[in-house]
Amino acid sequence: MAYQRKTRNLHDLAEKAGVTAATASMALRNSPRLSEAVKERIRRIAEKDGFTPRSYNRKQENAPGKRFSHLGPVLFLDNSVDETDPIGAALLAALGPMMNEYGVDFQVVNQRELAAQPETLEKFDALFFYNDPPVLELIPERIPAVQVFGWEKQRRNCDRITANDGQIVALAVEFLRKAGVERSAIFWRDDIVRIPDHPRITRFLAEMNALGIETTEFRFGKYDTDFTGRLKQYIEAGSERIGFFGFNARCGVKLCCGLDSLGLLQKYSPTNVIVCDNSVLLRDFWPNPALIDLDLPLMAKRALEMLFWRMEQPGIPEAFVLQAPRPLQ
Amino acid sequence: MAYQRKTRNLHDLAEKAGVTAATASMALRNSPRLSEAVKERIRRIAEKDGFTPRSYNRKQENAPGKRFSHLGPVLFLDNSVDETDPIGAALLAALGPMMNEYGVDFQVVNQRELAAQPETLEKFDALFFYNDPPVLELIPERIPAVQVFGWEKQRRNCDRITANDGQIVALAVEFLRKAGVERSAIFWRDDIVRIPDHPRITRFLAEMNALGIETTEFRFGKYDTDFTGRLKQYIEAGSERIGFFGFNARCGVKLCCGLDSLGLLQKYSPTNVIVCDNSVLLRDFWPNPALIDLDLPLMAKRALEMLFWRMEQPGIPEAFVLQAPRPLQ
Repeated sequence: MAYQRKTRNLHDLAEKAGVTAATASMALRNSPRLSEAVKERIRRIAEKDGFTPRSYNRKQENAPGKRFSHLGPVLFLDNSVDETDPIGAALLAALGPMMNEYGVDFQVVNQRELAAQPETLEKFDALFFYNDPPVLELIPERIPAVQVFGWEKQRRNCDRITANDGQIVALAVEFLRKAGVERSAIFWRDDIVRIPDHPRITRFLAEMNALGIETTEFRFGKYDTDFTGRLKQYIEAGSERIGFFGFNARCGVKLCCGLDSLGLLQKYSPTNVIVCDNSVLLRDFWPNPALIDLDLPLMAKRALEMLFWRMEQPGIPEAFVLQAPRPLQ
Repeated sequence: MAYQRKTRNLHDLAEKAGVTAATASMALRNSPRLSEAVKERIRRIAEKDGFTPRSYNRKQENAPGKRFSHLGPVLFLDNSVDETDPIGAALLAALGPMMNEYGVDFQVVNQRELAAQPETLEKFDALFFYNDPPVLELIPERIPAVQVFGWEKQRRNCDRITANDGQIVALAVEFLRKAGVERSAIFWRDDIVRIPDHPRITRFLAEMNALGIETTEFRFGKYDTDFTGRLKQYIEAGSERIGFFGFNARCGVKLCCGLDSLGLLQKYSPTNVIVCDNSVLLRDFWPNPALIDLDLPLMAKRALEMLFWRMEQPGIPEAFVLQAPRPLQ
């Protein structure tokens, strides 16, 4: 008798049915994108083996998954050009399973592809984008959209969600105040922060200086070669009780690399360095700096539901959402 | 043969079953609040007549209604003291059917009742409130909450939604600019606007004055007896091309009543008077003033879903939502 593996999870089921896990999942969700014959065949295998995954049981009770399945497809506009954008990557990682759960088709298109082939747009009913992609003007305003982060609302018929900078600054200030720092700097890269007087920068400077802690901006460029030299200079220019605030994950990486190459990461990282954005980019620095978690998966979920509402009811009043960061651990 | 009316809608079904339309609706939605016997009896009548209303068909596919039915009960805190608050009334009118749809229990408690019997709170899992009720401090912060309007976020574990005053002011300024007014005033009652430097007031003054239209505040008290006299004085003090901006529905009512008693409503209302809040209080003035629709039902829906998310996942980062007004018709 041949060994017969038990159907314990979706992958086992897919293997037995000779389909991908995604197809098996769609069959169990009764997706309209599969033929009835295929669904029936897969369901029969699942049934025979008594396989009813937990999540499908839950879905039958509450059925949130089917709620928007008549909508789509959604275009996710990927901004990355030369380097992967950690915001885009984190949003995508959260959106993929959600889209599956909601049963809505979506496709990732890079902004360069879109600029080269604007006719791609015709396939899509909605747009999910982040920051301020320059190709936005190619996309007709009748297409409902949602924007995550960015400088200003870029278009009509579009909701927007961004992080609450007032509360981000409050966390950073409180962290550095507790550390007893005597001076501090916020580190930002000028091709990333294209918002003049970004509130995260101006409020941090104002609040730290109001506490009597002399605080300045440490601005740098993407291709600067003297970052570490300037950092050394800054550190040696006064009290060594310094607070370091990284504007976002990429600025934080530069800061931590700089401190590391000066042999100062051990000294400063756990107590005096705080970075806005709990990104995978920063988890490998040891000892860990403090990270402000913006909860991008939740932000993606709020953005997505706003987009679905707008797709269902075009013309509803727009929402601008400020999401608070998670409190520090 | 007796005439037998066909079951064409919910009211026909309710009549045949000898129940209210609400009960018939609950039966078709399989509400846990009815006994199985009652539901079965009503369903059998519906089935016999081949009556499956459209909305229930839709619901079986998408099932949004059941999504949060495991939550509740929710306390709706009613702020009204001496007069009915039109905001509270509009929110309640929208929330009632929504709560029914979601299958979540809720109860309206007036702030005075709550102050007299704080033990009422023990029954509730969540709080829905608007503006800044003084009794808020009685309510433990572990209870998840959502706030509509109000000055500032009043508590932890609470999301908040309010109107986007920048866009409200833009609509009012554009309306009065098009009317060609040469001076204008914003009318507000000082016991309603308890936010110092309310953005709706300060931005309106700034933007109108920047356009070269001399603009002032017209502040009044709830019990002022000289409102009409002061209004007459203001109108006679310069050019008759005046723009009138009512801060909200109640201020707008006072303004329209004042113009009416001076015999000037006909002259000014349709072209020169604009009021923030499309309230039922203002629809009876003829000719109609322009009304800025804040879409309170949508605001209530967004607030409610934020509250449900917070009930399901306590501790998720808070959202502060600014909702745009609807464009003027």
